[in-house]
Amino acid sequence: MPTRAPKTAQATGLGRYVPFIHWMRHYRRDDLPNDLVAGIVTAIMLIPQSMAYAQLAGLPPQIGLYASVVPLIIYALLGTSGQLSVGPVAITSLMVFSGVSVLAEAGSARYIQLVLLLALMVGAIKLLLGLFRMGFILNFISHPVLASFTTASALIIAAGQLKHILGVSMPNLAFHETLYQAVVSISVANPTTLTIGLLSIALLLFFRMGLRPLLQKAGLQPLTVTLIVSGAPLITVVAGSLATWLLRLDEHAGVAVVGAIPAGLSPLSWPAPNLNDVQALMPVAAAIVLVSVVESIAVAKALASKRRQAIDPDQELVALGAANLSAGLFSGYPVTGGFARSVVNFQAGAITGLASLITAAGIALILLFFTPLFYYLPQAVLAATVIVAVFGLVDLKEPRHIWAANRGDAITWGLTFAAVLILGIEMGIFVGVGISLATYLWRTSRPHIAIVGRLGESEVYRNILRYDVTTWPDVVAVRVDESLYFANTRYLEAALLRIVAERPEVKHLVLIGSAINFIDSSALHSLEALLQQLRDGGVQLHLAEIKGPVMDGLKRAHFVEKIGAEHIHLTTHAAMRALGHG
Amino acid sequence: MPTRAPKTAQATGLGRYVPFIHWMRHYRRDDLPNDLVAGIVTAIMLIPQSMAYAQLAGLPPQIGLYASVVPLIIYALLGTSGQLSVGPVAITSLMVFSGVSVLAEAGSARYIQLVLLLALMVGAIKLLLGLFRMGFILNFISHPVLASFTTASALIIAAGQLKHILGVSMPNLAFHETLYQAVVSISVANPTTLTIGLLSIALLLFFRMGLRPLLQKAGLQPLTVTLIVSGAPLITVVAGSLATWLLRLDEHAGVAVVGAIPAGLSPLSWPAPNLNDVQALMPVAAAIVLVSVVESIAVAKALASKRRQAIDPDQELVALGAANLSAGLFSGYPVTGGFARSVVNFQAGAITGLASLITAAGIALILLFFTPLFYYLPQAVLAATVIVAVFGLVDLKEPRHIWAANRGDAITWGLTFAAVLILGIEMGIFVGVGISLATYLWRTSRPHIAIVGRLGESEVYRNILRYDVTTWPDVVAVRVDESLYFANTRYLEAALLRIVAERPEVKHLVLIGSAINFIDSSALHSLEALLQQLRDGGVQLHLAEIKGPVMDGLKRAHFVEKIGAEHIHLTTHAAMRALGHG
Repeated sequence: MPTRAPKTAQATGLGRYVPFIHWMRHYRRDDLPNDLVAGIVTAIMLIPQSMAYAQLAGLPPQIGLYASVVPLIIYALLGTSGQLSVGPVAITSLMVFSGVSVLAEAGSARYIQLVLLLALMVGAIKLLLGLFRMGFILNFISHPVLASFTTASALIIAAGQLKHILGVSMPNLAFHETLYQAVVSISVANPTTLTIGLLSIALLLFFRMGLRPLLQKAGLQPLTVTLIVSGAPLITVVAGSLATWLLRLDEHAGVAVVGAIPAGLSPLSWPAPNLNDVQALMPVAAAIVLVSVVESIAVAKALASKRRQAIDPDQELVALGAANLSAGLFSGYPVTGGFARSVVNFQAGAITGLASLITAAGIALILLFFTPLFYYLPQAVLAATVIVAVFGLVDLKEPRHIWAANRGDAITWGLTFAAVLILGIEMGIFVGVGISLATYLWRTSRPHIAIVGRLGESEVYRNILRYDVTTWPDVVAVRVDESLYFANTRYLEAALLRIVAERPEVKHLVLIGSAINFIDSSALHSLEALLQQLRDGGVQLHLAEIKGPVMDGLKRAHFVEKIGAEHIHLTTHAAMRALGHG
Repeated sequence: MPTRAPKTAQATGLGRYVPFIHWMRHYRRDDLPNDLVAGIVTAIMLIPQSMAYAQLAGLPPQIGLYASVVPLIIYALLGTSGQLSVGPVAITSLMVFSGVSVLAEAGSARYIQLVLLLALMVGAIKLLLGLFRMGFILNFISHPVLASFTTASALIIAAGQLKHILGVSMPNLAFHETLYQAVVSISVANPTTLTIGLLSIALLLFFRMGLRPLLQKAGLQPLTVTLIVSGAPLITVVAGSLATWLLRLDEHAGVAVVGAIPAGLSPLSWPAPNLNDVQALMPVAAAIVLVSVVESIAVAKALASKRRQAIDPDQELVALGAANLSAGLFSGYPVTGGFARSVVNFQAGAITGLASLITAAGIALILLFFTPLFYYLPQAVLAATVIVAVFGLVDLKEPRHIWAANRGDAITWGLTFAAVLILGIEMGIFVGVGISLATYLWRTSRPHIAIVGRLGESEVYRNILRYDVTTWPDVVAVRVDESLYFANTRYLEAALLRIVAERPEVKHLVLIGSAINFIDSSALHSLEALLQQLRDGGVQLHLAEIKGPVMDGLKRAHFVEKIGAEHIHLTTHAAMRALGHG
């Protein structure tokens, strides 16, 4: 597998802002076959996916194809990942549907206008975050939230596709209602549609799970295996369309088909933004940005590191932003880097953005010449594609792993999961982020406090509860395992006063700062009050092991004068020696 | 000054939930004169204040008096502070006005109903927070936010009273517009009202600033001085009323007076809550809870510690909650512990809640027999009382102090100040809390990272940038000064990879955990990825100085197996020795 040094580290001048210029200038002919094969494999995968996800988003299938041409080209020019496969993805498509279908009827002209506007907004937000190097705010979506959100969304998506498999119409419902309706609708299902849908699912699952080991055992090249397995959705699509066409199942058996797709490349579009629409779409735009960027940057980073390349998260935001703007201007809908497709792109050998350019060219060919082929494509086959694709997103091992690591995070997982299923996908992600932040603040607002003593004859002081250590009755040394800031000052003040109150012989309280990374002005205020209260009670406060930057702050705020420089010690041991011990 | 052990520490059984039972049973006769004098002094101060603050809240004066009877009794029964003077306060009154006057015309029957409902809501929220011991969430209002909010609110209050001093009518305006209107209204002011107002301000300022030193120099007892100075507002009220009555200034000179106040104790009331009103009032109720509790618990705590008593914050919430519920049921309006009044109560010698009971009895006497005395009380005098009272809340030294301690907090001060003045008092406090949280998250999301080396021949490792230390080319030891959690994992991963990338000779990365207080599951995920990425690059990750609870979590999550137990070291020095150095 070819490896190369990080691209961005070498790029200078314009090449830094348009990575395409850099990698095109240094393109190695040896990489061409890899990029070519990867581009073709990804295109084969993207053709059915883009139409299926458009259906999931409540859009006509050609919008999915349109979103897979210009945005891919833009990303190839500006992105720093050679493997990320940008285009329609399942979760973003669901978010588009759930956010826009409350404002306009799915599939209507107004609906499409709103979706275009949404793509522009998503693009603009990403672009601005990237240009102002504000990508850090996306860090506030934690791992349990993203894991839980992905699994819950996949279940919602799969449930929503059941109506296409059953060949019944069903209104938009909450998750549990959709499941219930699907079950009671079995008796009125279109049997032909149901057969096509279930066969498609079976075929896709066979390709995905059964065939790969068989082909590997048969001794085929890994690349050939990848090619065949990735081709499964297209093969299913072709088989389903052929059967429907040959048997005229649409006319004789009422099988819903995709129908006429207009030929031709993505037309120009302009969603004519107005303030009301922008306001109404803002929450869903923010949610899409949050979810799609975190996921696609994580994928790009993981794949890049396997190729020993590096990606630049802020430049990624710029590239994804520009790609979404182009989706809004060329009749597409919000796009992002898909996980499964990017992995296939990687396995098929993608090294540079050329692979993406080749994929875009493949989709463009379909749009120009082959759209009539999809007339007889049953919607049930597309639904089967979606269901099998999101199958891989359901991860029920992860919550157990999280539970082992951290109970609080496991609760976050559970609450986010429930919020997504009950409150919906958009509200769910915001609830998840809120819970993460609240958990963190709760945790740091009640810091761990250890009373320490001397370990044997060493200079090391450890928790009296965990080690057999020496202490003295007139001194209590307390290590606070958290920065001191407004949310924990009152808790801390109370805890320290209690420690002193429980030990009437204590004359000196040594506060150990080895885990205190900053002291904000609320905490300083509280320390001043504590100093005074302790003095009123005949107890002297000492500080030990205060870090450089924290000490600088204490000096600036004249706290050093207030406590007295002689009561500040370099180490806990130095404090103890100064107090006549150790 | 009398001192006693903390009350709550001794209280058991019912006395823990109704502190009154405890302190009444153990009441010392020696304390009676102190409580009696304090109760009377506070009543003298509260009579004009309660009417003035009611006027500020857009309510008739008797509502202020009503709010100063039953709520005080309830607080005396349930509260843990013997010094806190509960009743109407300036900032809460302004918040009532700004929150309710947008829903109904100030002073109207509907306005009063909404205010009663607001008192019930404030009471219910405080009670629930106290009962569920959730008082910690009030910690999220940081010191700079509260300081800034108080100063800005005082300015808004003072500006709003100018119309009463000028004797002109003025609509509700933003702060800068109010100031502007006041200036242009001088030419149309009522000269008699203006004279009364300015004279009252001068008299009050003289009592407050000039008289105390004079009386002290004259050798009077401190208690007598406090009594005279605290009586200033009442003396001003009496003087103003007398002058107005004698000269019939209301008829001859158009001076606005308080007018008829119905005699009799607080009537029962029931605001008949409905969901719409509750929803509309929720933000202002939340804001009042946030501001009033933080302030009054801080005051109670400070005064209690001077008496060597202790207060229980959760029980305080219960007591303040019940007091507000009673305000809603007995024709009052939201009450809280006032800063200035509590200090006077303390200085006058208050030891137990009996002082509050005596104050309540004093106000009840006024309501029963003396309301006609206030008929001729000019509104300008009340306005002067308010202006001089809030004068003490304006603190422009504090922002300079905060600036010295912490630039980020100073910016929080400034932004909150601007938000309160521009967006209003309610929005301002929420913006302030939001800025505090964002600042904290921003700070912890980009932790301080120090590469450390050995200090001389010691076992101490310090920052290579601050100390002259020994390092080795094949090992880099990095101390991360922050807990590892979702908001900083990506930053950290990038920083550590960069450190290794810049040092091609490095074979071992030692991560020092002395300042890592917890590792959440996002960070663990990231550590696992880092471990793999470093191994791929031929670098081994080591951990040193991991704290007990953190290590427990790493074990549970099987990270110890992944990294290999031999790569975890007790101290940095032990790690270095294991790697053949030191």
